[in-house]
Amino acid sequence: MNISVIGLGLIGGSMALSLRQNGFARFVAGYDSREEHAHTALALGLVNEIRDKQSIAENADLVVVAVPVDAAPSVVLQVLEHVHRHVVMDVGSTKEAITVAVRGHRNRGRFVATHPMWGTEHSGPDAAVATGFAGRTAVLCNRVESDADSAALVERVYAALGMPLVDMPAAEHDLHTAYTSHLPHIASFALANTVLQKEQREETLLALASAGFESTVRLAVSSPATWTPIFRQNSKCIAVALQEYIAQLQYVQQLLENNDDVAIGRFLHKANAIRNIVEQSRLRIVPETKNKA
Amino acid sequence: MNISVIGLGLIGGSMALSLRQNGFARFVAGYDSREEHAHTALALGLVNEIRDKQSIAENADLVVVAVPVDAAPSVVLQVLEHVHRHVVMDVGSTKEAITVAVRGHRNRGRFVATHPMWGTEHSGPDAAVATGFAGRTAVLCNRVESDADSAALVERVYAALGMPLVDMPAAEHDLHTAYTSHLPHIASFALANTVLQKEQREETLLALASAGFESTVRLAVSSPATWTPIFRQNSKCIAVALQEYIAQLQYVQQLLENNDDVAIGRFLHKANAIRNIVEQSRLRIVPETKNKA
Repeated sequence: MNISVIGLGLIGGSMALSLRQNGFARFVAGYDSREEHAHTALALGLVNEIRDKQSIAENADLVVVAVPVDAAPSVVLQVLEHVHRHVVMDVGSTKEAITVAVRGHRNRGRFVATHPMWGTEHSGPDAAVATGFAGRTAVLCNRVESDADSAALVERVYAALGMPLVDMPAAEHDLHTAYTSHLPHIASFALANTVLQKEQREETLLALASAGFESTVRLAVSSPATWTPIFRQNSKCIAVALQEYIAQLQYVQQLLENNDDVAIGRFLHKANAIRNIVEQSRLRIVPETKNKA
Repeated sequence: MNISVIGLGLIGGSMALSLRQNGFARFVAGYDSREEHAHTALALGLVNEIRDKQSIAENADLVVVAVPVDAAPSVVLQVLEHVHRHVVMDVGSTKEAITVAVRGHRNRGRFVATHPMWGTEHSGPDAAVATGFAGRTAVLCNRVESDADSAALVERVYAALGMPLVDMPAAEHDLHTAYTSHLPHIASFALANTVLQKEQREETLLALASAGFESTVRLAVSSPATWTPIFRQNSKCIAVALQEYIAQLQYVQQLLENNDDVAIGRFLHKANAIRNIVEQSRLRIVPETKNKA
């Protein structure tokens, strides 16, 4: 299969690399608006060839749009203008905006809205890995608006990546990911800023940064170019999740003030239930390795 | 050197294992109030011998007290009652309460208050690893209150564990760790409870739990028995840190409400500065491996 990838960052680059390595893609053409990213992606063997914007979709069976979510709707619409038989899929972290943007387009059926639930705090083609997706879930939104053969092809893509596929309406997806992905990122960004504001002396912070600290601020290293538009597009759902998170923190604050050990213990014990999720989730994952072509 | 360890959980067990493996300890005796923990520690080879509470300090050059911080002051005071030449150190995550508790004791000089800045979300002797401490910092508090030879021996212990040692007044330690360790734990416990409350169906949560989610809720698996007394003992410092964290989150909420992309981008970019800390910190760390004796 010939695949064209628009946007050769962490997600687009990893998808290109993975589908090349496992033979699902016979040929991968790539385009990135940042010339140095395109150059790096080619040098790292993520893609077979770099093309310009005009010719990127030529001869493609599948066009993967992997650009930030604020750019994705217009890129997808441009590609759909010139679509013949091929399929167009996006991989963004918000699904409502893009499905609304393509609604009613004469070629809507050729488009499939998806979200592979994987990423790291790193960005750009340098961050691409072949094995990240395997074992994670991918979400396909509003399947009824896609042609059956378009959805079937995308199913084969995610099967090739080792990702179980879940169907979900776009609005529902955006609400769930507000809790499971977007809120954790905000919690981490805000934690980093809280600590950085307090600990002005880098040596002190470095000395006292425990392993637990690193884990919770890991996501705070994530790219503003990727995450600002995600937060913007999903701001309504995130606002609800964030309000609930703040309420939980205020509850802890109250318990601390009251020296209520029993209730604090209960709060921590309740949170321990997340162990099931974390452990089951890890069981499904292939260890991440830098595995360049 | 003969070392006795009181409390054979994650920290006490890891310290025993590490100091046995590298030959610093010729013999390690252990005691744990939970009989099954003592049994497991012996079976795993963390210690050479299990003793009862009365005889644990006999013939020891060093007694390591590694019990939850609410129990530590009375345990340290009991050991200090019968101290002759040996040294007693604690390893708890709060330092003000214990240094106040021993102040004025006739054997205060034999005690050294310390905090090795390492841990995992797991607990008990099963969680012990030999290589966790290496490359992390250890903090020694109120050195002037310890005898010079006591502090010198503890310096050798942390050198043997591969941990650079930092001196700090107890009150200052408690304020810094409120930010770098205690607040991240609360952030993670509260995030887990926020998401668990929303996502009642385990399958949905499991499907949509991204890698980022796992990283931020990792600490929420931590032991309530360890963390409830830490939060209680350091509640004043934590309350300040938590208030600042909530303020940062409320600021994000305001930016989302105003659709202020520019300010959101600035907020994320500012948080990215934590990259230096995380990367420098990682560079010093020996990879964690399960490396049982």
